[in-house]
Amino acid sequence: MIALDESHDPARRSWVEKANLPDAEFPIQNLPFGMFRTERGARLGVAIGGSILDLVAIAELLGDVGGIVTECEGKGLAPLIGRDPKAWSAVRRAVGRVLERGASQGAAAAEHLVPMSAVEMLMPLRPGGYIDFFASIEHATNVGRIFRPDNPLLPNYKYVPIAYNGRVSTIRPSGAPVQRPRGQQRPQSEGAAPAVAPSRALDYEMELGFFLGGTSRIGEPVPVDKAWEHIFGFCLLNDWSARDIQAWEYQPLGPFLGKSFATTISPWIVTAEALKPFRAAPPSRPDGDPQPLPYLAEPAGALGGIDIRLEAHLRSSAEDSGATKLGGASSLGLYWTPGQMVAHMTSNGCNVEAGDLLGSGTISSRDGGLGSLIEITRGAAEPLKLKDGTTRRYLEDGDELILRGRCERDGFVSIGFGACAGRIGPAL
Amino acid sequence: MIALDESHDPARRSWVEKANLPDAEFPIQNLPFGMFRTERGARLGVAIGGSILDLVAIAELLGDVGGIVTECEGKGLAPLIGRDPKAWSAVRRAVGRVLERGASQGAAAAEHLVPMSAVEMLMPLRPGGYIDFFASIEHATNVGRIFRPDNPLLPNYKYVPIAYNGRVSTIRPSGAPVQRPRGQQRPQSEGAAPAVAPSRALDYEMELGFFLGGTSRIGEPVPVDKAWEHIFGFCLLNDWSARDIQAWEYQPLGPFLGKSFATTISPWIVTAEALKPFRAAPPSRPDGDPQPLPYLAEPAGALGGIDIRLEAHLRSSAEDSGATKLGGASSLGLYWTPGQMVAHMTSNGCNVEAGDLLGSGTISSRDGGLGSLIEITRGAAEPLKLKDGTTRRYLEDGDELILRGRCERDGFVSIGFGACAGRIGPAL
Repeated sequence: MIALDESHDPARRSWVEKANLPDAEFPIQNLPFGMFRTERGARLGVAIGGSILDLVAIAELLGDVGGIVTECEGKGLAPLIGRDPKAWSAVRRAVGRVLERGASQGAAAAEHLVPMSAVEMLMPLRPGGYIDFFASIEHATNVGRIFRPDNPLLPNYKYVPIAYNGRVSTIRPSGAPVQRPRGQQRPQSEGAAPAVAPSRALDYEMELGFFLGGTSRIGEPVPVDKAWEHIFGFCLLNDWSARDIQAWEYQPLGPFLGKSFATTISPWIVTAEALKPFRAAPPSRPDGDPQPLPYLAEPAGALGGIDIRLEAHLRSSAEDSGATKLGGASSLGLYWTPGQMVAHMTSNGCNVEAGDLLGSGTISSRDGGLGSLIEITRGAAEPLKLKDGTTRRYLEDGDELILRGRCERDGFVSIGFGACAGRIGPAL
Repeated sequence: MIALDESHDPARRSWVEKANLPDAEFPIQNLPFGMFRTERGARLGVAIGGSILDLVAIAELLGDVGGIVTECEGKGLAPLIGRDPKAWSAVRRAVGRVLERGASQGAAAAEHLVPMSAVEMLMPLRPGGYIDFFASIEHATNVGRIFRPDNPLLPNYKYVPIAYNGRVSTIRPSGAPVQRPRGQQRPQSEGAAPAVAPSRALDYEMELGFFLGGTSRIGEPVPVDKAWEHIFGFCLLNDWSARDIQAWEYQPLGPFLGKSFATTISPWIVTAEALKPFRAAPPSRPDGDPQPLPYLAEPAGALGGIDIRLEAHLRSSAEDSGATKLGGASSLGLYWTPGQMVAHMTSNGCNVEAGDLLGSGTISSRDGGLGSLIEITRGAAEPLKLKDGTTRRYLEDGDELILRGRCERDGFVSIGFGACAGRIGPAL
């Protein structure tokens, strides 16, 4: 169904030896794109092993596609993502040819290899729009149960890929600090005024993000079977959430200040092409659930889902305590696939713009992997014990929350995403 | 409280004679900014009478601020709006000096005056973010009564300036066609599947929009008494809404496809400076309503509100029928002022970015002026009769909806906004 080629060949190796280690997140089969800062300013790069190849510096080694890379100088990934999958693929393949073991351009390229530890990662591009879905039925049910015990899942859920528009200006790359937000909190008694205070219910949400590329026209929906042609690549996304602010504000127009203070993404965009071996058919709908409506129905046998295993870890400010694993789940279990999300978002005539960032919503799983503290502590009722002996209902100042992502499949080289990390700082 | 100066002087006249007519929307006291297209491409201009002054072409007549205008070439208003109120004011004053009667540069400038009827207006700039409020308590109550007769106004309303993030990619200037969206509609009976069909409840929302300028830092809220320093200017905004799609999808994360298919704005940004004479204290809170929380409390005597009279008109496709006035209301009656909206949106640490577009939400008034069809027809229960003899529950294909805005105050020259119009085209 999905054509694989030499870029996915598990026998392929790079002259960057660290990329060939079995636990490498960035082997030559991955080649994610990102922006990093050096003393020369913001640069476009590709991750390989523990290093970054400065693409603009080696543009002349890339042959025909060198011009696209040169255009990206000073503009982030926008000139590349605005093109089509053929161009995306051509650039990734050209980079792969430079980085593979035995490449004649290897020595020239090696001069433009920068250790990851030496540079700051930036946003890969400024998202034009940010749409966050709610695609894990397990998460929707778990959270719904806390707010509406008798009626956890609303009647629209199994038909509508629920989503909201989020705030773009506060999306930042891994490592950017996260200041605890202040806000209104539900009054203790009816008729009393709300308190305005630092959030006491600061949470994370373990999500998959994906950047759309190409463009579509207003008024022309993208059919579900063409949707992957608009998916450039994936990242990890933490949709930080202040549950107390959100609970008081969200009726009737949805989350606003409970979310808009911060969103963190992993800075490397792992391309949809690199992820092809990990595409799979999503699990079939449980008995009794409706089939997707025609505009959301994937063709028979389509590998519409993607099997990325996400994990969340919490590291407290206590020294040497190590991180505590909070939960893990695969994106393959989502109730809606990335293609269904794109088809739904455009079904009313809304267009795709290159650089749109979509989020999956918190990923929790049928087998108990949970993607947020509100689920793990059942609405703060059952505190979680960390490795350092302390407990958490929600995040405390000094806590660092780290998401990781990994794809594994027999017969293929495993690829990773790098970290999506943020540390909580005190409220102003 | 608010310093007025020669730019507001009612005795001032322009050598563009149409600007001096008593019903002119664009007298020399206005001078709104916009982008228009000529055979030379997208150009920055100022409206005067029935004409547009091509600012980039006359940059050398603007003295010190000519450089800012030149920077705007090819970039829309972004380079200007990214500066501070002093710079905004300096450009507006320099343009006023060129356009006033007796100006020595008048003859040179007149060569770069373009009739409005000859050009297409474009978006003044690409908004970085779009946040739509719900600031008319009359609208919130009227709509709430239809959905929740026993409980029209939710308990958070009088404390929280409710808002949601909207979709930026489908915001278009007046005149752009609006295609009727298709979407899921609530099933007729419990357990049945939703229909997917063209919306049968397409509505308009009469709103005020305003563009923010300057920037603020993440983590540093903008205090309510500094908020106007971030307000560059105002436009009219129609937040087209498919009520049937919205009603089915909006729980629990708010409106999405019911809104994201189209938003129309009037293309001229009327500056906050030009609007100074129309600033006023908003009406005091009704007896029994809580006072705004401290972070939302305007200083005593502050002229936090703005008195812009909006009207909506509907012109059907029947020939020569004329337009039917649907309703009118002033933005001064809003429950939350523009400054309170800015203070609220940043109160959790979210930043302002130059180019953010905020909407007021539908403006309805205490004296019965209504800003949407759902209110006028009481949820389609009482059809509205048009001048051509036909009736409407919601908008029909071929209908054109036109918003107009006007400021009037004794002792000052009246200013207008131009049209915010869109015609409904059939669903795909």
